[in-house]
This record gives sequence, structure tokens and C-alpha cells, in this order.
Amino acid sequence: METIIALDAMGSDRAPKPEIEGALAAARNYGVKVLLVGPEEQLKRELTNHPSARYLPIEVVHASQIIGMQDKAAQAVRSKRDSTMRVGLRMVRDKQAIGFVTAGNTGAAMATAKMVLGALPGVDRPALATVFPTSAGKPCILIDVGANVDCKPQNLAQFAIMGEMYYRTIFGSSKPSVGLLSIGEEESKGNELTRHAHALLKELPVNFIGNVEGRDLYNGRVDVIVCDGFVGNVALKISEGLVEAVRFLLKQSLTSTITAQVGALLSRKAFVDFGKRLDYSEYGGAPLLGLKGVAIVGHGASNNNAIKNAIRVAKQFAESGINARIEEEFTNGSASA
Amino acid sequence: METIIALDAMGSDRAPKPEIEGALAAARNYGVKVLLVGPEEQLKRELTNHPSARYLPIEVVHASQIIGMQDKAAQAVRSKRDSTMRVGLRMVRDKQAIGFVTAGNTGAAMATAKMVLGALPGVDRPALATVFPTSAGKPCILIDVGANVDCKPQNLAQFAIMGEMYYRTIFGSSKPSVGLLSIGEEESKGNELTRHAHALLKELPVNFIGNVEGRDLYNGRVDVIVCDGFVGNVALKISEGLVEAVRFLLKQSLTSTITAQVGALLSRKAFVDFGKRLDYSEYGGAPLLGLKGVAIVGHGASNNNAIKNAIRVAKQFAESGINARIEEEFTNGSASA
Repeated sequence: METIIALDAMGSDRAPKPEIEGALAAARNYGVKVLLVGPEEQLKRELTNHPSARYLPIEVVHASQIIGMQDKAAQAVRSKRDSTMRVGLRMVRDKQAIGFVTAGNTGAAMATAKMVLGALPGVDRPALATVFPTSAGKPCILIDVGANVDCKPQNLAQFAIMGEMYYRTIFGSSKPSVGLLSIGEEESKGNELTRHAHALLKELPVNFIGNVEGRDLYNGRVDVIVCDGFVGNVALKISEGLVEAVRFLLKQSLTSTITAQVGALLSRKAFVDFGKRLDYSEYGGAPLLGLKGVAIVGHGASNNNAIKNAIRVAKQFAESGINARIEEEFTNGSASA
Repeated sequence: METIIALDAMGSDRAPKPEIEGALAAARNYGVKVLLVGPEEQLKRELTNHPSARYLPIEVVHASQIIGMQDKAAQAVRSKRDSTMRVGLRMVRDKQAIGFVTAGNTGAAMATAKMVLGALPGVDRPALATVFPTSAGKPCILIDVGANVDCKPQNLAQFAIMGEMYYRTIFGSSKPSVGLLSIGEEESKGNELTRHAHALLKELPVNFIGNVEGRDLYNGRVDVIVCDGFVGNVALKISEGLVEAVRFLLKQSLTSTITAQVGALLSRKAFVDFGKRLDYSEYGGAPLLGLKGVAIVGHGASNNNAIKNAIRVAKQFAESGINARIEEEFTNGSASA
């Protein structure tokens, strides 16, 4: 059977170029068929610049509206009934595609996915997970990073189960460790939400290692970190800001003296390697977990490599049967109320 | 009149070495007298290794107990009545010193300071501020970073006033901008706490620029960022963790090929400069704001330079009269209830 992924062709900041190139690369490398969802005429014209498109399983599916980064999620969902997101997610709902990928407005993607696909039975709040690189070489996922700003302790417990299952499946780890993001390792440390959540997490059938701290996001000490969407989103944006600042300062330092310039030239390859390890695009975007279907949100600044990887992750996600297992856990397992 | 600072000689991870050396440097450079608070015998013995101590205004004040990093704040405050923190802060309360500096347990320092010094009239919750470097070259302060984990909107409004006053005084900015840490710039974005706080911040006599995001911590877009202590502490720890990871990855990348090694050698000076700009010790630690007195908390990993700078900041803080202005604002100004 054909593996079909619906791709929002107009999501990223430089759309549709990275989308088209990423789709072609994915079709070539992963044996998937990609449906480019967006303005038919424009996309078909762009595709003529890529002769290989004629020999690859790429199709255009028309959608007349685009949700921008500045659009408010709730309003965009209501008013843009023919948006690329809505059309793409409908194809997942109607089994014409096994997953949806977008590099567009995260809030709108979440809201549209909740409306079109709906939550899995037993899941109170679908959540957005993001993958971080660590200095230990393995990834770390943070859940939730913005879908749910005000959470109850039981929401965090559900995030733990969904995140653990995603990590286990996508990264092939048999017993990923789960930590609760707090401000001290002792159980008593934290705010009201985390103290209550701690008690619930201890009872879950996951490898819960207790509270972890912000620094553990990058040292590989823990595989899955659970937090509410406000804290998670702040964490994500701070990381992006700091990486930007480091790059800027480094560049400035390295061009400040002749000696340093020569050094910089010689170590250019090392910097490229370094940049690649910090490059979130390698990990293929952020999955929306807890939905009846597969949806992956990439960064707005996604390049073709990021899009390609997001398509790969969507395929893995769909084929792994994570959703069936989440549903099973939430309706019959220990996570059911 | 002599400017006297009480210094917790046993606070940092490698105490008392950085404390003694930092105290000597401060006494030499800033015209302050430093009281080294700690075990008298040990400190006097250590001072014999520093001949210059005989000619500088350094004195030892005995305190028999040390609060460790692992001690629980509330318990340490209750049980250790002769701790270096308690003795040092008592000297501030009793006007024998104009400020207190410690690189020890932050929670214990906050709890001890609240008990010994008390809050300024009108201040509901004293708060801890931290200074971050930005790629724009100027500092940014984040308040609160851990003193108050569960906050009400009015607490955040008070943090804004205290932080703004500190920034204005210590960094000599006439109208520092103030932002509310949230997950989107629109007023409607954020969680329940920030949405309510936004409404209050708009009414304050400060240059409020609205919601800011995590990335603004490092780009110099805003001078003072307000958040609750849980979010602030997570932000701080994530930054530390990411800087550590970047250093690690960079070092690894730069030693991975011969070419890169040569490059690394040549650009060594540039890296030292770079490290210095990211080195929080340059900014002299985190002030506790809203107390009847001056208390500065340095990082546990403080070196002598960090201690020296923290002493400088304590002196500036005390001489600036910030506290009198906070009290005035909170009892007669717009911040009074």
C-alpha cells in the first residue's frame, strides 16, 4: 500500500520552496507519496522548475487559503475554511493520507488539528512535543511546548505517557526516562502544579526519575521532560534566543582580530559540524500527540532538510501505531481516570 | 565614613578561597572594608597565605555554622542560628555593614534575609533578580528567578517596579524598558497569571513595552523582564545548561580534526573574549530586591572575580538609595495598594 503524506506547501517562512524541495527529497529517499497542499496554479508552476518531480510521487491538492504566522489561531480556524492546514488535515481524517506536516503557525495547526481530527478517546488535552539535541548525543523531548498554557496535574501525567511512548517508538529506546521540569530535584521543590503532578507521575507505568531542572534539557540526563505549555514554550524560545546570541557573539569574536580570522577560516568545518548538531531541523519537527491522526509541526524557518525530516518522522509516527497504544493506555491502562 | 560589606566567606563551592581573594581585590579596588564572616580560626589561617591582607581593610567576623547547597532553606534558617548568612545579615540589620554578599544557597539566603532584614513597607514579596548578558552588549535583568514560585498578578507588578528601579540605578539607564515574559506578543497571549498581570503593568509608571518572549532575554530588545519565580528559575537553569552544552560541543568539534585544532589554537584568544561576555560573573550576582537592606547572591561556582564584582554591586546598591525609593514608591506612589 502506498504511504501518503499531506504537506502544507505554504507553511514555512520561505514557502513553498523548502516544502517543494523537501517533498521531492522525501519522495526520493523514503518511498512516500507527498501531497502538496496549497494554491494549485502556483504550486504547479513552481514544480516545472524541478524536472525530477515528473518521475516522483508528488501531487498537488488545491487549497485556496493560507494561515499566516500573525493570524490568531482560533480566528484563523473559524474563518479560513479552505486553508492549507484544514484541507491537509481533512485528508488525514478521511484516510487519504497517513499524516500531515506543516511548518506554519503552531497555534493554528494545533487548533485545526484538534477540530478536524479530534482527541484520542481518554486524552483530555493533546500536546505539542519538541525534540532537543543534547551534549550526550541523544535527543531529549520536552512536552508540552505551547498547546496548553494552563494545566492541571492530570494533564501533565497524560503528557508523560504520550511523550514516553513517542520517545520509545521514534528513537527506539526501550525504557526512556521521564522527568518533571521543576526548580529543584527534591519532591517538595516546585510550584503548586508540579508538586501535585509529581505525586501522579510516581504512580505511572513509566521510568519516572523525579524532578529535573532546566539544565537537564541539554545534558542527556533524561529522555522525556514534562511541563505545562507556558513553561515549555518559554524554554523553547529562550533556547532559540540563546543559540542566536551565541552564534552572533562567536562570529563577532572570531572576526575581531586577524589571528582570530585566520583561526576562524581554519576551523570553519568544525563550525559547520557544530551548527549541524545544534540544528533542530535534524530531528524533524514537533509532533502533536493525543490526536486521532498524525500531525507534525516544523519550525517556521524550516529548510528543505527540515521538511524532509518532518515527512520521515510523520511516516515513522504513523507506521509505529503510537496512537493505538496511547488510546489503549488511556482507556484500559493505568492512565484512565 | 567607611563603606563596610559583610561577606559570607563560606558560600561558594570552593569557599573560602574565591571569597578571600575576591575580598582582597575589592578592598584594593573599591575602597571598601570587607568583613569575612565564617569560622574564625580557619579564615585567619587562610589569610596568612595572603600577605597583602595585613595592609588592607579586611576583618574576620566569627560564625560557627555553614549552610550547604543541599540544606533545605526553611530548615537551615531555623536550625542554624549561628550560620554565616545569619551573622552577616544581622550586621546589615544592625548597621555594622551596608550590605551582605553570599555565593551560597540561594533559597536559604532569601529566607534568612527575609527573616533577619524583613521586607520594605508595602512590598508583599521580595524577589531575586538576575542579570543576563545580551548580544546588544547591554545587560538584561530577569525578576523573579526563584524567590516566589507561585505568584499573584500584583506580585509581578511589584517586581516590575523594583526591577526597573534597580536597572535604572545600577546600569545608569534613564528609562529602561520593562517587558512581561509570555508566549506571544499580543496582550491576549499567555497564561492566566500573565494575562492579569499585563493589565496591571500597563498602569504602572514604567516604560512597559508589553509581552516579550524567551528569545528577548538575549537580544537586548528589553531591559527588565518580569516573570514568576518558577518560570524565571527554569529560564536561568536552561540558559546555564545550554551554555554548558555549547561549550562542550564546540570544544568537541574544535578538537575533531587537525585543521580544526590549528584553527582552535589561533582563535583561542577570541574564545576567551567570547567566554568572558557570556560569563555571568562580570555582572556581579543577583540582588534580592524589596528588603530592608542590601543582599547580593552570587553563583555557587563564583570565582574571585565574581565575588569582587558582587561586592562592587552591593556597594553601588547601598549608595544609590534604591531601597528608599522603592519604599517611597510602594507607600506613596502608584504601586501602593
